[in-house]
Amino acid sequence: MNDLNTSFLNTKALPDVQGSDDARSLAIERVGIRGIKHPIQVQSGSGSFPTVARFEMDVALPADQKGTHMSRFVQLLQEQHGKYDGLAIVQMAKNMLPLLHAKQGRIQMQYTHFVKKSAPISAVESWMDYEVTYLVEAKEGSDQTIEADLYLKAIVPVMSLCPCSKEISEYGAHNQRSHVTILVKLDADANLGVEEVLRIAETEASSELWAILKRPDEKWVTEHAYENPKFVEDLVRDVATRLKHDQRILSLTVEAENFESIHNHSAFARISLP
Amino acid sequence: MNDLNTSFLNTKALPDVQGSDDARSLAIERVGIRGIKHPIQVQSGSGSFPTVARFEMDVALPADQKGTHMSRFVQLLQEQHGKYDGLAIVQMAKNMLPLLHAKQGRIQMQYTHFVKKSAPISAVESWMDYEVTYLVEAKEGSDQTIEADLYLKAIVPVMSLCPCSKEISEYGAHNQRSHVTILVKLDADANLGVEEVLRIAETEASSELWAILKRPDEKWVTEHAYENPKFVEDLVRDVATRLKHDQRILSLTVEAENFESIHNHSAFARISLP
Amino acid sequence: MNDLNTSFLNTKALPDVQGSDDARSLAIERVGIRGIKHPIQVQSGSGSFPTVARFEMDVALPADQKGTHMSRFVQLLQEQHGKYDGLAIVQMAKNMLPLLHAKQGRIQMQYTHFVKKSAPISAVESWMDYEVTYLVEAKEGSDQTIEADLYLKAIVPVMSLCPCSKEISEYGAHNQRSHVTILVKLDADANLGVEEVLRIAETEASSELWAILKRPDEKWVTEHAYENPKFVEDLVRDVATRLKHDQRILSLTVEAENFESIHNHSAFARISLP
Amino acid sequence: MNDLNTSFLNTKALPDVQGSDDARSLAIERVGIRGIKHPIQVQSGSGSFPTVARFEMDVALPADQKGTHMSRFVQLLQEQHGKYDGLAIVQMAKNMLPLLHAKQGRIQMQYTHFVKKSAPISAVESWMDYEVTYLVEAKEGSDQTIEADLYLKAIVPVMSLCPCSKEISEYGAHNQRSHVTILVKLDADANLGVEEVLRIAETEASSELWAILKRPDEKWVTEHAYENPKFVEDLVRDVATRLKHDQRILSLTVEAENFESIHNHSAFARISLP
Repeated sequence: MNDLNTSFLNTKALPDVQGSDDARSLAIERVGIRGIKHPIQVQSGSGSFPTVARFEMDVALPADQKGTHMSRFVQLLQEQHGKYDGLAIVQMAKNMLPLLHAKQGRIQMQYTHFVKKSAPISAVESWMDYEVTYLVEAKEGSDQTIEADLYLKAIVPVMSLCPCSKEISEYGAHNQRSHVTILVKLDADANLGVEEVLRIAETEASSELWAILKRPDEKWVTEHAYENPKFVEDLVRDVATRLKHDQRILSLTVEAENFESIHNHSAFARISLP
Repeated sequence: MNDLNTSFLNTKALPDVQGSDDARSLAIERVGIRGIKHPIQVQSGSGSFPTVARFEMDVALPADQKGTHMSRFVQLLQEQHGKYDGLAIVQMAKNMLPLLHAKQGRIQMQYTHFVKKSAPISAVESWMDYEVTYLVEAKEGSDQTIEADLYLKAIVPVMSLCPCSKEISEYGAHNQRSHVTILVKLDADANLGVEEVLRIAETEASSELWAILKRPDEKWVTEHAYENPKFVEDLVRDVATRLKHDQRILSLTVEAENFESIHNHSAFARISLP
Repeated sequence: MNDLNTSFLNTKALPDVQGSDDARSLAIERVGIRGIKHPIQVQSGSGSFPTVARFEMDVALPADQKGTHMSRFVQLLQEQHGKYDGLAIVQMAKNMLPLLHAKQGRIQMQYTHFVKKSAPISAVESWMDYEVTYLVEAKEGSDQTIEADLYLKAIVPVMSLCPCSKEISEYGAHNQRSHVTILVKLDADANLGVEEVLRIAETEASSELWAILKRPDEKWVTEHAYENPKFVEDLVRDVATRLKHDQRILSLTVEAENFESIHNHSAFARISLP
Repeated sequence: MNDLNTSFLNTKALPDVQGSDDARSLAIERVGIRGIKHPIQVQSGSGSFPTVARFEMDVALPADQKGTHMSRFVQLLQEQHGKYDGLAIVQMAKNMLPLLHAKQGRIQMQYTHFVKKSAPISAVESWMDYEVTYLVEAKEGSDQTIEADLYLKAIVPVMSLCPCSKEISEYGAHNQRSHVTILVKLDADANLGVEEVLRIAETEASSELWAILKRPDEKWVTEHAYENPKFVEDLVRDVATRLKHDQRILSLTVEAENFESIHNHSAFARISLP
């Protein structure tokens, strides 16, 4: 791809196509790379775990500039050291702007987050997995300092049990796997951990999930879900209610999607605040 | 799922869980169904073709209402007759609001669009496929009439050839399949056809694609692409330039993604106007 | 791509790269195209419906031949007329061999199959969708006649309710969406319809699915599933038992996968006969 | 799910549904779990890297046994320590059989493999990613020892440049990203490393890929690919030729798929030996 970084190589002989002017007078909102995979270690709570991240990195391009320097995004990624968390991504985004000669840019990192959970009765331990995304939007302010907004998105697999089905049936109630997706804009210190967010979705569902359930655990989960029926509407309202008074959250969107066990399609609901 | 439509069945004995009041004081922005597949015939240009559509249908739910009536969305879909186009979806969305007792709602229909194309030299005909989405946002105005905004999104597969690679190399130039995604908000009459949008993306790429190319066609495509190198930045600028002066388009976003033949990741760019 | 069909164009000036000999002495089992989409009408039972098919078409290539003629596969597809069913694909595969100068070849057609179903109590009608694949393996016999084997694969979404959860719990039982996948080799007349296969999977599940369920239907489905608990092992055994005595089926594989509502992973089972 | 492991809990009160006899007289070829994600460290060559694995684990179930003990699969996974490679999976599969009281079983582990590569001219380093799968089939022999077969599958993204397009065109040649998929059955010692397999696919392609290419590298890749045109047929023949004489490989399948830059579908080819 198009690249200009010539710090260690004499590339004078090669024409600099991206460096030329552009006459179409159209600024580009975002230009960069997408879908690049990277092996990382994530810092979370008291521990860390290995995982794979998928990055999207882009910058704004002024109307008079023909192209950006694609290989510098990857170089920034390759030179990143240590464990990843929200603050590490914020720092990467701040470093990206001068490197790309840009006034604005974004880094998005999606990865599989793991939490070691204990089954409710037997207490057997197992890893549970969640898809988590950090998004940082960085911008050069009027005084040339770089400011950054940090967003966190988590997809939390849970169980939902239908209140209507329970109410109208002599016995049983249909239930299914659901995804609760929480997207929050965090305050500057980002002191809201991923696991705190995951727990809110899990405790507001009909039941949370585990990778290992022994029989006494399975009995507990079945009965617990039956005692906590929730429509998809209840799920988003209950999760949003828990999040909306938290001072560390500047804005939020909650979505729930039930992979209905009685249909071949999903039911979903969504709340955005403020 | 939760449903109240009792027009043809005596369901008095069954409690109406969704009909009860809700005390959490949180309105729901969107509640509905997603991922339901439907066999349809699409009207386009002078002809029509069979295809499969995937629908998402939702309404806004006031803070004091516990749930919506999920089965009515599907019923609306089942009762739809005739061929589909943008205006048919607008009408469906307008019919949805009273049926669901809602003041606001959305219908999104994603389907595979087909165009019969002739190869550039041999003129052999073949179907080319595109992923197209219509989105209608309907809203009850102060005078109780329903207004609707119509959006059209099309993902257009094309070929891009790298100007930098061409310029710096003795011979050859890397090229690859790219996706140009155009999202436009259309005026009330929606008199901008899908195929007009597809053609703009195709003619601004290094080359368009065909399902059948005989050898003289392949020669033409290879040379034509080599003569029209485009960065991902050029692609979005050239397509946006073509669209931005069209009076029928109220706003637009253009994105291009190159599935780079020299990397295992994509390069992408995006412009939003106004 | 590589193509030699010059019936209507004088391409003498263009060298015929694929026509040259190959010295590596390695026959190619399959060479062809994949992932091409086509708008079709499917004939099924007493009616027909519009849908989209995804084709994979390939032939065997002898050791001394450098390449095949890719555009002829697409041409065969473009020239196909009328409605599609198993026998139409068999005929296409038989036509493909002489067209590609091949002694052996395969056509695979995957599409979304639709069945109009009536809800169990209200009898409301709605479309239900299934992913269906036909595979034909054609081969030139010693007497130059072409023989063909026909396979049918159907993925049937159903509901499964866990017998263990029901047995050990005071009330309720976890249940979820499951996929029953049936793959059968059919006899020469292929007189086993898709819908017959789908019904076997549906009737052996804890419950079948519908796109529309009114409340009395939902009550019926909930109670019916509770009365018919099935492990993933039961599902494959019960479906295989139904299929194994059918004279029209020459061999079969049945797989069931439960998208567990209590875990974030699946349970699955599989039987192959004979 | 169904589970019997009661080593640490008194579950006498809970009925043992899976333990009962089954009268349908149908053995189950495979029953187990699928799609469970796990954070792991992979040992490869001289180093190791963090990644995420997706497991499928199953056992054969005799005709007279109603069900298997699903939670034990996950338990085996949770108790696995140390870094993963082919031999570690073989050992896991051997341990699985007595734990599940089974005579036959399989473990499949799919993960993203990373290799740190140096660009061809600038020597800049970057991670390249590949999808790799290990499959172990374990079986109890007549003398009660457990034997295991080990398979390795790797999907290697490369670049292919069309010989026909090059030959017939005045300038340029279409090229694209391709996937070379290698599946090999390894000998007992499994002393064929993943990276050796990846390198064979990469060196036989028109060009290999890198995450970072500076301009002199991009020039090299462009010209190198132009000098090494390959049909999809050439790709599978050249890779198979390299693998077929290797004594450590007991059988092999090679497939190549070109995501054609001039079409919206793929060309593919496949060789299986012996």
